[in-house]
Amino acid sequence: MTQMGLRHRLYRQMEPNARDKTGLSPFNLFIVILVLLSFLALALETEPTMSDDWMLAIQWFNIAIIAIFAVEYLLRLWVAGEDPRYRGLKGRLRYIFSGYAMADLVAFLPELLWILFAPEDSSQQVVMVLRVLRLARLAKISRFIPAFDVLGATLNRAGQQLFTTLAMAMALVYVSAVILYFVEGVGGLQQESFASIPRAIWWAIATLTTVGYGDVYPVTPLGRFFASVIAIAGIGMVALPAGVFASAFSDELRERENAKLKARNEALEEEIETGEVAPKGDA
Amino acid sequence: MTQMGLRHRLYRQMEPNARDKTGLSPFNLFIVILVLLSFLALALETEPTMSDDWMLAIQWFNIAIIAIFAVEYLLRLWVAGEDPRYRGLKGRLRYIFSGYAMADLVAFLPELLWILFAPEDSSQQVVMVLRVLRLARLAKISRFIPAFDVLGATLNRAGQQLFTTLAMAMALVYVSAVILYFVEGVGGLQQESFASIPRAIWWAIATLTTVGYGDVYPVTPLGRFFASVIAIAGIGMVALPAGVFASAFSDELRERENAKLKARNEALEEEIETGEVAPKGDA
Amino acid sequence: MTQMGLRHRLYRQMEPNARDKTGLSPFNLFIVILVLLSFLALALETEPTMSDDWMLAIQWFNIAIIAIFAVEYLLRLWVAGEDPRYRGLKGRLRYIFSGYAMADLVAFLPELLWILFAPEDSSQQVVMVLRVLRLARLAKISRFIPAFDVLGATLNRAGQQLFTTLAMAMALVYVSAVILYFVEGVGGLQQESFASIPRAIWWAIATLTTVGYGDVYPVTPLGRFFASVIAIAGIGMVALPAGVFASAFSDELRERENAKLKARNEALEEEIETGEVAPKGDA
Amino acid sequence: MTQMGLRHRLYRQMEPNARDKTGLSPFNLFIVILVLLSFLALALETEPTMSDDWMLAIQWFNIAIIAIFAVEYLLRLWVAGEDPRYRGLKGRLRYIFSGYAMADLVAFLPELLWILFAPEDSSQQVVMVLRVLRLARLAKISRFIPAFDVLGATLNRAGQQLFTTLAMAMALVYVSAVILYFVEGVGGLQQESFASIPRAIWWAIATLTTVGYGDVYPVTPLGRFFASVIAIAGIGMVALPAGVFASAFSDELRERENAKLKARNEALEEEIETGEVAPKGDA
Repeated sequence: MTQMGLRHRLYRQMEPNARDKTGLSPFNLFIVILVLLSFLALALETEPTMSDDWMLAIQWFNIAIIAIFAVEYLLRLWVAGEDPRYRGLKGRLRYIFSGYAMADLVAFLPELLWILFAPEDSSQQVVMVLRVLRLARLAKISRFIPAFDVLGATLNRAGQQLFTTLAMAMALVYVSAVILYFVEGVGGLQQESFASIPRAIWWAIATLTTVGYGDVYPVTPLGRFFASVIAIAGIGMVALPAGVFASAFSDELRERENAKLKARNEALEEEIETGEVAPKGDA
Repeated sequence: MTQMGLRHRLYRQMEPNARDKTGLSPFNLFIVILVLLSFLALALETEPTMSDDWMLAIQWFNIAIIAIFAVEYLLRLWVAGEDPRYRGLKGRLRYIFSGYAMADLVAFLPELLWILFAPEDSSQQVVMVLRVLRLARLAKISRFIPAFDVLGATLNRAGQQLFTTLAMAMALVYVSAVILYFVEGVGGLQQESFASIPRAIWWAIATLTTVGYGDVYPVTPLGRFFASVIAIAGIGMVALPAGVFASAFSDELRERENAKLKARNEALEEEIETGEVAPKGDA
Repeated sequence: MTQMGLRHRLYRQMEPNARDKTGLSPFNLFIVILVLLSFLALALETEPTMSDDWMLAIQWFNIAIIAIFAVEYLLRLWVAGEDPRYRGLKGRLRYIFSGYAMADLVAFLPELLWILFAPEDSSQQVVMVLRVLRLARLAKISRFIPAFDVLGATLNRAGQQLFTTLAMAMALVYVSAVILYFVEGVGGLQQESFASIPRAIWWAIATLTTVGYGDVYPVTPLGRFFASVIAIAGIGMVALPAGVFASAFSDELRERENAKLKARNEALEEEIETGEVAPKGDA
Repeated sequence: MTQMGLRHRLYRQMEPNARDKTGLSPFNLFIVILVLLSFLALALETEPTMSDDWMLAIQWFNIAIIAIFAVEYLLRLWVAGEDPRYRGLKGRLRYIFSGYAMADLVAFLPELLWILFAPEDSSQQVVMVLRVLRLARLAKISRFIPAFDVLGATLNRAGQQLFTTLAMAMALVYVSAVILYFVEGVGGLQQESFASIPRAIWWAIATLTTVGYGDVYPVTPLGRFFASVIAIAGIGMVALPAGVFASAFSDELRERENAKLKARNEALEEEIETGEVAPKGDA
């Protein structure tokens, strides 16, 4: 192998596609773990029963996270130059406005600015907006876990079927709600929970997805009769889009894995043919 | 292409089968959206906590909808003449008594008559009947979304299996209810909710569909034991008809899509052969 | 076709296997409907809020049912002579002690005896026993709906896999219950509902089958954490036996349908070859 | 067959792999039943409403179990010498530190020591620890039911897909919880149950697994709207890892059964060829 500078080495650490091994590089693994921890911190931070000591620890952790993500952002901006697309000033600008870079920026900048310039303004609105913006950190993970961008491909692949089954499910939910509204809300015992179609839709969704919280249920014999028929006939219907999606998602995932394996094998074979590297036993 | 009159052009806009592109025509898309909005309006209209302003807006929207659907009905009646089956006076009568045309009529006429002749009679009975009749508008959508008429074909295709599994599920629900009735309603703590077989059936359905509202559940150890056995053994059984249906529905849908694609391709090839149109790149 | 006596004609009406058409004979259809109605009557009879008029009607219906089933039993006993196995006195005895004939007897005799000899004794115990015995009428239906005896074949077919997955599910339920018992019942807030392993098993079954009545659920953070992990990891596990059963049942059903169709075709072809009947268009 | 000593005969009884028939040997069946009974006893023992007589019976049963398991342990240690790996003193030490032998030891020793040396110390802590240790008896069963060690192979087989789908499910749970936290806990009616993200996660898991206890559910229109969308879109997502696992588990199980059958057939054929045993009809 030829010599390579620090930037190139960093690039191979930070850019998943530039890496010649499978799996995350140590650097990216560290980032992923930080993001997961920051989500855990976000969750715990909102819990009012946490002790003050914990809250203080979480605040310091948040500041550390922001600092690390700021450094990461600058590093990624620097090493982006290794990619022909992002070379030069114009390339860097293109990088800055790329989706992942934007998400990276949102993931630390608003909170950094707040800490630097207005830490005393801890009104609920500000805190809430900052917390919502932290969800942009999800993009940091999605860059490494291919499944997250499989979603779009799945929706594409199963589009027509998914749309049809969703339309059927929606129609069923609506009609079920209308029936129960007439039986339980208008006729029968005039239950408050079925007093309008939107409320009956809440019942229909809770029932047809089989969640069944138990906050709303029919009490008249007629209402129970219709609810029974709807439940037995409709549960399969409402589960259909989920099934279609699951199956398409699973197919997409398998295909990608196969394509990736094939590409890797071909690359390896080519390398062997060109004599660049000798085949190893653990390949 | 040859010249064509307004009626022919409208016919190709309104009749999905006469259209040479896939997807809805702008006119039909407009109708579908109106129907969906009218269902939304129906739902909101029943909500007692809506403000008066909203209620007034919804009423005006309803009147507009009825006017549009009336115009649509007359237009469809006019352009039906393009279809050989519905040509001439006798053909038009045949059209009027066809399923979709009847549904189109029910979708606006009763409410139109009520607005014109008896708007002051807003007794609950009349309002409720009018609201139920609005469900006929579902037929307007089902004309364009093939899935809605796939239902019949699916029931045909899976008929025998569906019937058998439904019979098994019903038998299981009944026997489960009888067991719990004897254990919880007659013996044990004599729960009110299990005091008769019909009430126990309500429990059995809520349990075996896994909805589990929590309004009824066994409390004695023996009742819980039987309920556990029934749940573990029976859930698969009761989910079977839904599974059979879902699988047949999905198969039917796929076959239709393939058949449609094939027909379109053949038609295209024929056109190319006869030299009517030149093959385009985006075919 | 040759002449045949009344008994032979009745035999072909009553014995499904002796019938040359598919579907139920009018006589058997009548019996099946009667059985279903008798189950409906049984259900309604137990409902304390039914009016006295209805109760009286149901009682008369019950008496009519018993009379009809008694006549049916005697008829079946008579026509059984058409079957070589049940010919003669010894054959008839063999018939009487066959499973279906026993169930037929239990389906009417106890109640007939009670009506004839001790109608005044309507103590709850007697009424309950009589009601339970009526479930024997299920056998009357199972004779005609092949699916009911498919159950045994299914259990045979999927035996090993079913047993293994059930054992896994049971182990999971038990271990989940033990964990929640220690976390919620012994440690934590010492909930009454988790105060013993049997009670925690009730929670585990309600959760892992996703019924979730809501009568029992963890409230401590640790309990909720374990419950979450158990739910996400375990639901697939507990649904596995049901899935294995459903798939084997569906396979068994399809195979039987195919075998039946094939047998019918072969019989038909043979008949055509031997020239007994001429092939008809609607075959 | 040649003569064989008691140890060899016992070895064939105790070691499943040394047995030439399928199924459990009488000795191992006895052990499995004892383990199952001991788990039943453990469950009943924790139930505070059990009568004192039952409790006494259970205590005696526990002592008997411990004695039997102690004897079983010593026997297994003795017969382990039949296995070349565990021959001699060094081999025995290796056996003692093997997984199953350790579990066998934990299954009786702690409780035996407690009975022998400190029965008067029945503080809750001690009792609880002893009860938890009894779960080690599961290993006794897992030795005979191959399914238990199929788990590892399944996780291996479906690893990548399982991980991806689990990550998606986790992300969905988290994002759903955050949305409902902002809508129901921060905005809206400020429900206590949604007052922090961890609490909202409890709701998200109960909903997306369709357990739906009903202890937590949205009440504001906006919250119900988001919950509906999340439920319909997300249930398939969260069920995906369970589906992936179930399918891989089922595949693994089938493959193993086939491999076992094949191995048995080959062994049989070899025996026939070498003339060691004559082929029997019931093979």
